[in-house]
Parts: sequence; structure tokens; C-alpha cells
Amino acid sequence: MSGSTFGHLFRVTNFGESHGPAIGCVIDGCPPGLELSADDLQPDLDRRKPGTSRHVTQRRESDRVEILSGVYQGKTTGTPIALLIRNEDQKGRDYENLVDTFRPGHADYTYWRKYGFRDPRGGGRSSARLTAPMVAAGAVAKKWLRETFGTRVRGCLQQLGPIAVPFEAWEHVDANPFFAPNAAIVPRLEEYMDQLRKRGDSCGARIRVTATSVPVGLGSPLYDKLDADIAYALMGINAVKGVEIGAGFNAVTQLGSEHGDELTPEGFASNHAGGMLGGISTGQDIEASIAIKPTSSIRIARRSINQRNEPVTIETHGRHDPCVGIRATPIAEAMLALVLIDHALLHRAQNADVVHAVAPIAGASGRGR
Amino acid sequence: MSGSTFGHLFRVTNFGESHGPAIGCVIDGCPPGLELSADDLQPDLDRRKPGTSRHVTQRRESDRVEILSGVYQGKTTGTPIALLIRNEDQKGRDYENLVDTFRPGHADYTYWRKYGFRDPRGGGRSSARLTAPMVAAGAVAKKWLRETFGTRVRGCLQQLGPIAVPFEAWEHVDANPFFAPNAAIVPRLEEYMDQLRKRGDSCGARIRVTATSVPVGLGSPLYDKLDADIAYALMGINAVKGVEIGAGFNAVTQLGSEHGDELTPEGFASNHAGGMLGGISTGQDIEASIAIKPTSSIRIARRSINQRNEPVTIETHGRHDPCVGIRATPIAEAMLALVLIDHALLHRAQNADVVHAVAPIAGASGRGR
Amino acid sequence: MSGSTFGHLFRVTNFGESHGPAIGCVIDGCPPGLELSADDLQPDLDRRKPGTSRHVTQRRESDRVEILSGVYQGKTTGTPIALLIRNEDQKGRDYENLVDTFRPGHADYTYWRKYGFRDPRGGGRSSARLTAPMVAAGAVAKKWLRETFGTRVRGCLQQLGPIAVPFEAWEHVDANPFFAPNAAIVPRLEEYMDQLRKRGDSCGARIRVTATSVPVGLGSPLYDKLDADIAYALMGINAVKGVEIGAGFNAVTQLGSEHGDELTPEGFASNHAGGMLGGISTGQDIEASIAIKPTSSIRIARRSINQRNEPVTIETHGRHDPCVGIRATPIAEAMLALVLIDHALLHRAQNADVVHAVAPIAGASGRGR
Amino acid sequence: MSGSTFGHLFRVTNFGESHGPAIGCVIDGCPPGLELSADDLQPDLDRRKPGTSRHVTQRRESDRVEILSGVYQGKTTGTPIALLIRNEDQKGRDYENLVDTFRPGHADYTYWRKYGFRDPRGGGRSSARLTAPMVAAGAVAKKWLRETFGTRVRGCLQQLGPIAVPFEAWEHVDANPFFAPNAAIVPRLEEYMDQLRKRGDSCGARIRVTATSVPVGLGSPLYDKLDADIAYALMGINAVKGVEIGAGFNAVTQLGSEHGDELTPEGFASNHAGGMLGGISTGQDIEASIAIKPTSSIRIARRSINQRNEPVTIETHGRHDPCVGIRATPIAEAMLALVLIDHALLHRAQNADVVHAVAPIAGASGRGR
Repeated sequence: MSGSTFGHLFRVTNFGESHGPAIGCVIDGCPPGLELSADDLQPDLDRRKPGTSRHVTQRRESDRVEILSGVYQGKTTGTPIALLIRNEDQKGRDYENLVDTFRPGHADYTYWRKYGFRDPRGGGRSSARLTAPMVAAGAVAKKWLRETFGTRVRGCLQQLGPIAVPFEAWEHVDANPFFAPNAAIVPRLEEYMDQLRKRGDSCGARIRVTATSVPVGLGSPLYDKLDADIAYALMGINAVKGVEIGAGFNAVTQLGSEHGDELTPEGFASNHAGGMLGGISTGQDIEASIAIKPTSSIRIARRSINQRNEPVTIETHGRHDPCVGIRATPIAEAMLALVLIDHALLHRAQNADVVHAVAPIAGASGRGR
Repeated sequence: MSGSTFGHLFRVTNFGESHGPAIGCVIDGCPPGLELSADDLQPDLDRRKPGTSRHVTQRRESDRVEILSGVYQGKTTGTPIALLIRNEDQKGRDYENLVDTFRPGHADYTYWRKYGFRDPRGGGRSSARLTAPMVAAGAVAKKWLRETFGTRVRGCLQQLGPIAVPFEAWEHVDANPFFAPNAAIVPRLEEYMDQLRKRGDSCGARIRVTATSVPVGLGSPLYDKLDADIAYALMGINAVKGVEIGAGFNAVTQLGSEHGDELTPEGFASNHAGGMLGGISTGQDIEASIAIKPTSSIRIARRSINQRNEPVTIETHGRHDPCVGIRATPIAEAMLALVLIDHALLHRAQNADVVHAVAPIAGASGRGR
Repeated sequence: MSGSTFGHLFRVTNFGESHGPAIGCVIDGCPPGLELSADDLQPDLDRRKPGTSRHVTQRRESDRVEILSGVYQGKTTGTPIALLIRNEDQKGRDYENLVDTFRPGHADYTYWRKYGFRDPRGGGRSSARLTAPMVAAGAVAKKWLRETFGTRVRGCLQQLGPIAVPFEAWEHVDANPFFAPNAAIVPRLEEYMDQLRKRGDSCGARIRVTATSVPVGLGSPLYDKLDADIAYALMGINAVKGVEIGAGFNAVTQLGSEHGDELTPEGFASNHAGGMLGGISTGQDIEASIAIKPTSSIRIARRSINQRNEPVTIETHGRHDPCVGIRATPIAEAMLALVLIDHALLHRAQNADVVHAVAPIAGASGRGR
Repeated sequence: MSGSTFGHLFRVTNFGESHGPAIGCVIDGCPPGLELSADDLQPDLDRRKPGTSRHVTQRRESDRVEILSGVYQGKTTGTPIALLIRNEDQKGRDYENLVDTFRPGHADYTYWRKYGFRDPRGGGRSSARLTAPMVAAGAVAKKWLRETFGTRVRGCLQQLGPIAVPFEAWEHVDANPFFAPNAAIVPRLEEYMDQLRKRGDSCGARIRVTATSVPVGLGSPLYDKLDADIAYALMGINAVKGVEIGAGFNAVTQLGSEHGDELTPEGFASNHAGGMLGGISTGQDIEASIAIKPTSSIRIARRSINQRNEPVTIETHGRHDPCVGIRATPIAEAMLALVLIDHALLHRAQNADVVHAVAPIAGASGRGR
């Protein structure tokens, strides 16, 4: 268990650095017979990729993915699927000054302390660029979930810095660069980002991610609860500082008579649980949201130290997202999809034979929004 | 990976049900030579155990732990440490009515769907009683961390339902049944709980957990980030619906110029990061907090269904915590300690040989409060 | 991955020492709904237990197993099954002399070097006594395999020291203390053992283990091949020095035209493969055999050293098996059964949906001897 | 745990098929600071690669490896090392006939049954070509072991079909295409292979693999014994049917007074144990050997069936090794090196702090041959 592999049965091993030759991943354990080509992966990669609007980093990467193995005659074979994305825009500037100093809020200091040295080019391994392979792997998971259960995994922006984004409709999400589920608010978001960029500062964001038509029974009592694994997956995304499931921190001030979702013959009457009880999916929509911190690379001067523990002042210029949260929606979707496929396989491994003395009635679950 | 084992190298496998013969765990991978007896585990077990005040469940369990293996002549041998806690107060009431119906907010429904049937006695495997072995294992972790690095893991109540609990001093925490770090507020908490109990309702809570003197370098870039593993550990505690690291959801509205912790020759100037950057510990205090939902077992009548999908009304009488959050503090401490020891072992496995071209200066980390 | 847990999905975590309070294991991932009681486990425990004939150690242990969790109303619930066996005959003799010296062929020296000290009583953790929990867990696996696929796992003695034991019939195996599949040879085995015991020496053995009615498709291309996992499982049994699958070392001198098993519409024409090809089960009988070294504890004086690297002479008196191979048959069966159930669960996790364009015809596999 | 990842802390995830675009692996958990370039990997890849003599397959592959990540300025960074080898000689012949039929002794039948269909080109995932990434990963392990402990991992041919190869000297091994540690026997081996090739048949082999200067203390009591993990690693190599540690199957006929290695102040007096006791390394040389079955692809006609269970006759023409054992030596070395580095990291994770009351004296281990 050396960290870079995600999942128990649908396992994704990630590799690469921001400015190395390539990034990618190996997916092990994918069920065979799934129709798959690079075209299935590219749409989500394109949603995530840099340079798509003035509000994100201007790095130019086509993020074209090559499938190196595990697919034959257009179908997954059940053997490892290796995905390769060549880095194209490794800007040839000098990172030597970064080797010696530590940007506040970055992994520079911790990497140096842990490993003795690090690849400083573009943040090396700590770059958000490493989410591209996750998104590609997530696209495989999404496709299998959709074809197997009709599951649909979607995300959207809930808040950008101080601006809350009321949910209107899913159809807006892919029609603006913020993944905002609300068309009317987009000009405000653009204006806010333009000001922020002018000031050389950055801001945080809140992202919602959800899944519909999730099978009942995914997860386990402990420790690999569905919610625990979702928390692990989402907190593991770069810059995430908080994760909520269902009511989340609102549950602190709820009463039991308000929080506990009543069951009716037509399904659950509410969804404060966010789609899981006792670590196991209820069949309701999975609901989670995450807090993303403001980007650490800003043009405003900040205090830091160098390797000799001497004080220095740092401003970070170059290409950076002023809000990493803007591109986080497809990443959060991917991570949720990866958890769900993994638990779907785990569930049938143990429980494929389960027979109920009284057969469950479909109506008892479902009912999302 | 079948769910009931926690950790990568310091591994805890949990077993038992609320009303079965016994609960317990097996700790595998503990370093040898640690002085250990049941007396080291009992204090934290006693802090967690039921029946210690009128505000928690009145179930009577001594929670005496027996060490079955892995300790010889008062020291850990490096082989598995099995811990056994016999259940004593399995009240002989009839659970048969629960077999057929599903309490809102409980795992009843999801267990039935997953496994086909379940042990309904006292919630069976989904009972918060199963946190006792975690607390015992956590006590082993705490001791090793303290002796090895001077690390101290502590938790406290931050909010009880609507009542925020301002932090005053750690010394108050163990002097009241709420683990409140504030003596003056205790009468208000007691009054609130008495009213709640009278109404037969329940409430949520917010718990803070922290660790001081944590070594720099624990964690990894992805996916097993220290924060991701902490989120997994804390979200896996019964009834938890949200996890924050450092600034948590406040990071959404922070600017980059505010959030990123500056470094000075004397250490970090602030700790919005909560003690980790890029998935790796900075040496600052680890800071996390969790949201705990209100207890689902309440005396107020609620709608539900039975196995035949017919509507029923349910009131839950008997012994229950009106706020599971009250006893959650030692559990959260245990889970954090388990993550830290696991990552301490993982870190030295890979990086024991690391030599820095320029030796890190101690002042660069540290600075808790 | 700290060593004491066996398996990927059907996971067995072992604990205990020879002369500690108890030994046992926790089985995680067992499918729910399997009828199970201690009576299902006891027969195999009794086949393994000491003191059943004059040819094995005279330690008196009833090896009664208690099921602590995971079974409700006589059925597995899908949650961890904890099994506890109390040690009864921890003879109160002085092991202090063993603390300082290292018996040739024992783990004394390596444990001391690895852990700094060790529990010396009866070999501590290195005792063959720790195979009892494996046998109990194996009995659960055997039962599930038999009920699910009709799989039968059996073992027998193939050679005792210099005496080859020709296979006659399975029915003889449990009718003699050697698990010999041959009634006529038993007097010769007894005579050999009596002489050996008189001389204070020990001997090795060769054990065969097999499984019939194994589903096709268990295993994976690499690395977790069915044969690799069987080799791991069998080599992990105390005192095993060699493992063969199918033709084993005879394959070295076979020609390809002889070794490769031809397929016919009625099934495979031979079974040199031992029931697996490319790491995956063929549906033929699984065939494996193991070499067991002679017991290291003998009454004959041998040279050794003490902790101060001074020469000493050692004779080991007390209760020991003069041939550990004699009791190895039920252990080898258990380990094979554990591998098979684990791979059966892994297989259906990934491949439950597999549809063949041309449906496989049953006749193409099967045909053991 | 989906099969294609090897190791616990030094983890190698393998991908690719014989005739797909590329093969490779991702190494996760490598210690940082190791000097590494493709030149360190190429020598072992060249020892393994096809086409180097008339006695092996004539497929032409340069097996040039590209390091995609994890190395910066010539040193490992501690992050995943991705290795890529493009397939160059994917001969464009028609494999369609193989899709419908099953070659005796091949994985054709089992893959079809497991996955529903398979990539038949050159054996797809079951090809011995997939050992190339193992050899590359093993070269990293070898380098780290050598620099850290002075460990040297070496292998050689022990037997080719009926011809035993007496050990003379390591220096001969790389001077002939058979990895024979004996110069005089090479003409006999060549003659035997020429005849075999003429007849269109194939033969088996026996390979020895050893490691010197291994630290004491690697491994664990159970289940992840050093011998169990070596057995898993070696049995997982294509075509291996048997594994021996130390005396191996000879232990069956040894007496305890002969087998148990005596300890003297100058070290162990013999090495029947093969360098491990109780699952833990003694510091003596690791000694293992493996049986490799004859290649299944032969020109001699054999009976088989097709997917419709109809009888067919199969001859396999094209490029094949008439003895896969010939190229197995560098593969076996790699697998042993991978087990050793993994256990070296596991050992220091748990036992880095171990202090002995009496310091071990170096002389007590060592002494190989």
C-alpha cells in the first residue's frame, strides 16, 4: 500500500509529474466486455483541461489520452487498462529559485522534508495536473455504472468565493466555464474572477457532486463504509479542505426528529442522509459537497523561508488557476464514480447470492431530485 | 480488502456486534518493545463507555479489555495484539419487531438489503458499541506516538446542537461529561440535554480533534494523503456527516492571500492548512473537526415501512444516547492516532534513509497553540 | 499489509502464541446466509489437534472453538466472524534457558534478530499451534465451497521420510493417524516412527492436497495467479520447504508433447497442469503437493550459540512432533480451501456479467481422477 | 487487490499485452534519492530479451525502456516510476483461427472461460513478454539492495530437460545463452536444443536463484513469511510448476539431525534452510529453485477442441521459445529482488527502533557458498 493506487477491486494507479514526459494511470480490475475507446474518455478530459477560458490557467495541453492495453477490438478484456497522456506544454522557464524556497500553502516544504528533494517544475507530483488521469479513469467507471445500473454521476459549482450559486438545472452546468447550474449568475462570477485576477489574488469554492440510480447495498458497516471511502476520495483531491455527506455540518444543529429520513411505501421522504445509512447505500441519490481552498500561487508578495531557514519574500507569477475550484467539478465526479464502481464490485463479490425471505420492493428506495 | 480492517501497516481488524458474546480487535504491525498492559487501554475505554452520566445511554458495560496475544513480559512482541471485550449487558428484550421494520436514520434497511438479513439486537454490527475496540487500539497508537515523538492527540466538543462551545483550556475537557473545553458552559449543556431527553428528541454535535508534536513528512502526494486518510477515518465513525481539515469550509470564502500560511524562521505564522500541505504533514498541529448527526433512535413517532413495504409508525424506546456526539471525542482521538501511527510507519519504510543536502532547521515547523 | 492477514476478499487475520491465553482468528468477508456453528469447525480441528496418537506431540488441548461474532440464528451475517480457542495445556516449565540460546532449525534466532526479544514459551508465535485457527477458517471456506460449487478439498500423506505411500483410496485417509490413503502401509509407518522416536530424531514428509469440482475461471493472469496464491498459502505453512502444482518438478524432464494436456469434447485428457493454465483454473482437479522438513526440536545434541555468540550444545526435550508432516494434511486442505474461496469471490466481483458468444459446454472441463 | 500489482510497499503494477501498443509497469514506493536512469535497467532487459540466440524465439524487440516519471535530475524522487516499453515486432499474421480454438497447455481456454473473450495475438496478456517489465522493476530493486546492504541477487540454469548442469562458477553464467554456470556443458546444451527444435518439440528446465548479503530479520511469522512471498513471486512466473527453498523436496527424506543448520560463533554450519527460519531471513544466502514446464507451443500435432466443443487438431507454428526456461534466469532474479526490497521496507517500518539487550554479533549469520 504505497499510496498511489486508488480502490480495492477497481484499482487505479496514478503516475507522473506536471512537467515530466507524461502522466497517466493503470486501471486494474475493470470488468471485461465494456465497449471502450479514447473517445469515451476525452469529453471529461476536455471538461477538466486547462486553457478553456480566461478564468483558468493558460497552459496549453491537448490532454489526448492513449489506451496502451486492456482493450481489444473495442472492448475491455478484463486485464489492466493503461492510459497515457503526454505533457506538451512544459514551459522552459527556470525553476531553480523554487528549489531553494517554499511557497506558502504549497507542498514545496513538505515534499522537501519528506523526500530530501523534489521535482520543482510546475509543482511536480503535487500539481493538479495529476487529476487528469483520475478523470480519465473516472470516465471508464461512469460508463460502466451507467450501462450496468443506469447510474449517473454529476457535479456542479455551489459557491465561488463569497458568491453562492443557487441550483437551477443540470443543463446549465456544461454551458459555462464554471460548471455553474445557473445561467443568470455567470456574469457575476466572471466579474468576480476578473477582479480577483487583476488583484493577483485567488479564491476558494464549494462543489457539489451527486449520483442517481445507485444500487442499494454498496458499502460495509466498518471501516470501508461508503461514506468513509467517499470522504477519502474527495479529500484526496488537490486543495480540498472539507467533505460533507448529505446534511453535512447542518446535521450539527438538526434535531433527530428532523434529520432521520422517514420511509414510505413510495420511498424515502427526504434525503438528509445523502444516500447512505450505516455506511451502506440506500438507493437514494448520493449527495456530497467539498470545500476547495484558494490557490496558493498568487502574485501578492508573501513571507517565506529558504532551505537555510532564512526569511525571503515570494510572489508567484506564471500560469496558475486563480480558483482551482473552477476545474474541480469533473474531478469530483470522477472520484465519486471510482468509489461507486469499486463498491459495486465489492458488493457482488460478497453478496451475489443473497436471497431475501421477503423480496425488497423497488419503491422503497429511489426518489432523488 | 473486506472492510473491517483499518490501516496499512498498523492494522486494526474489528469484530463483534452490540449484543453478541464479545467485541474486540486484532492489531497487526505494532512495533515491538512497547510497554503495554490493559491498564494503558482502560482510561480511554472508560472515557467512552456508556452509563457515565445521565446524558448518555444507561447501558451498563464495564468495558474491561483482555489482551489475548502479542504482549510478553509487559512488552509488545511485534506480533498481533488481540483485544477482547465481553458484552455484559445484553438486555433480554424482544427485538423481533425490529426485524421486520426499519427505523428511520438507521442501518436497518440498508443491512437488510445488502445481506438479506441482519442481527437486529441493539443495532448489531452498526452499533456505536463497536467503537470501543477502536478506542482501545487508539490507546496503543497514542502511547507509541507519545513515546516516540512526543505527539499528543486530544479532542473536545465544539458545538452541541445549537450551542457553540468556545475553547478555553484542555484541562476542562475531562472534567465534564461532554468533553467541553469550557467549564462555564456546562450548566447550559446539561439543561439543553435534559430538555431534549424530556421531549424524546436528539441533537447533533461538532467535535474537534487535534495532534501536537507531529513529525514532518507523514503522508503522500496521492492518493493516500494524510488528509484523505484522516477524512476516511473520521467519516467512518458512526453518525459522522462531515469532516474538515484546518480552515475546512471556511476556506471557500477565504482569499489566497489570507489562507496560505506564511513561513518564518520561527515557524509557520498561521495554521489554516490544519497541519498538512500536499497530503503531507508540516509539523504544525493537526486540526480537524467533524459533524455528528442527531441520534436516530428517538421516542417521537416517525413514519416507516416494513419488509412488505407497508407503512408503519415507529417510536424507539429503551436505552439510547440522545446525542451520540457526547461520547464521540475519545473515538475521534483514537481514529486520528491510528492514522498517525500508520503513516509514521509508512514514512520510515520509504524514507528512513533520506538525507537533506541542507539539514532542515527545527524552527521551521512546530508552533501549535 | 502487516503479514498476519490472509486473503484478499475472504480475509483471515490470525493471532496468538503457543502458550499465551488464547489463539484465534477473525474472518472478514464471508458471504452471508451460510449456516454455521462451532460443530462445523470442530471435525477439522480435531483432525489437526495434538495428542491423538503416540506419533504426535502429547500436549493436551481440546481445541474447542468459540464463535464470538458474525453468526446470528445459526447463519453467517456477512460481518466478521471471530473465532477463539483458549490454550489449556501451557505446561509450566522453565523457558528461560531458551531465551538466551537458539535451537538449530528454529525461528529463535531470527525472531530475536527481528524484534529484539521474543515470547519463547513453546515457540511463541512460530509454533505450529497457530495452524489451528487456519484450520477453523478453512472449515468455513470448505463448507461454502461445497454448498456453492460442490467443491471438495482433500489431502493425504504421500511420503513419510523414506517411505513412499502409494495412493489407494480416500476412504483410508481418516482411518489412520498419518492421513495415509493406504491401509496396508500403516504398520510400516508406525514402526518407522517408533524407531525414530526412540533415537530422538525426526523426519520429513510429503503431503498431497487436491480439490475437485472447482469452477473454471478462478485466478488471474498475473500476479495473483491461482498457482501463485496456492504456492504462497502452502509455503506459508510451518516447516514447508517446497511446493509443486500438477507435474511439479517432473515438468523439468517432460517434453512439451507430453506435458501439455490435450482437450477433447469429453474434457482434458490428462492433468499435468494440476488444474490451472495461465494462472486460472481449468475446472480440472487442483493438484498440489508440499515438502515438509523434519522437526527441528530433537533429543540429539546439536551445536548452537547463545546471545553472546558463545558456543553451546542443545538438546530439546519435552513434547514435540517427531514429524510435523503427520498433522499437516488438514492444514494443507484448509489453506487450499482459503485460496479457492478467495478467488471465487474475486472472480465473481469482476466477471459476474460475463456472457460468452458461444456458451461453454460443461464437458470441456472436469475429469479428475 | 485486483491481481496485477506485486508487493506491499515496493509495489509494481504491470500492464500490457504481447501484441498491443506497449507493455510496462508503475513502481510505487521506491525510496527517494536512488540514482537511476534507463541505463540501469537495460542490461537485465537485454539478458531477458528475445532473439539473442538461435535457441530462443526469433521475435525482434529492442526492449528499450522509457522512464516516464519518478526520476528527476537522475535520482528517484520517491513518487511513482512509470516504465514504458513499446512493442515493435507485432507480426501481422492472422490470429483469427486461434480465437476459436484452444492450444493445449495454454491459457487460451481459461481466459475465454473467465473473461468471455480474449486478445489472442501472441498470447495477449499470458505472454512471457510481460516478464520484461518485471525484469526492469527488478533492476531497480537490485540496485537499491546492492547499494543499501551489498545484497547481490543471481540466478543460473540447474537443469535443461534431462541434462543436469553442475555449478562451477558464476562467471560463466552470462557467457552463454543458457545462463549455465558451467562452460564445458554448453555444447551439450546446444546440441540438445538443436535436436529438440528439429523435432518441433519443447523441454522444461530448472533454475536456481540466490541472494547474498541479505539482512537478517526480513519477513514475518505468518502469513507474509519471506518464503511464502518468494514462493508466490516465483510460482507467478510464466510456466513455473514448482518452487523449492533451501533443501526443498530433499527435506522429505532428511532427518532432523541432518537438516537443522547448526549455529557456530563463525556462522551457520550449513544452509538447508535456504536462508530463512520461521519465515524470517537468517542472513545466510537465500537459496531457491524453480521447475519450468516445457513450452506449450510446439509444431507437433495435438488434440484440442474449439469453442463449440468440437474436436480439432492443433500445431503451433511461428516464433516460440522451445524452452522458456532458457530466458527465465533474469526473470527469477528480478522476482526475488522485488520480494527482498519489499520486505526490507516492511521490516524497517515496524522494527526500525529495535534495540537488543545484547547486541547481535555479525559472525552469527553470513557464510554462504
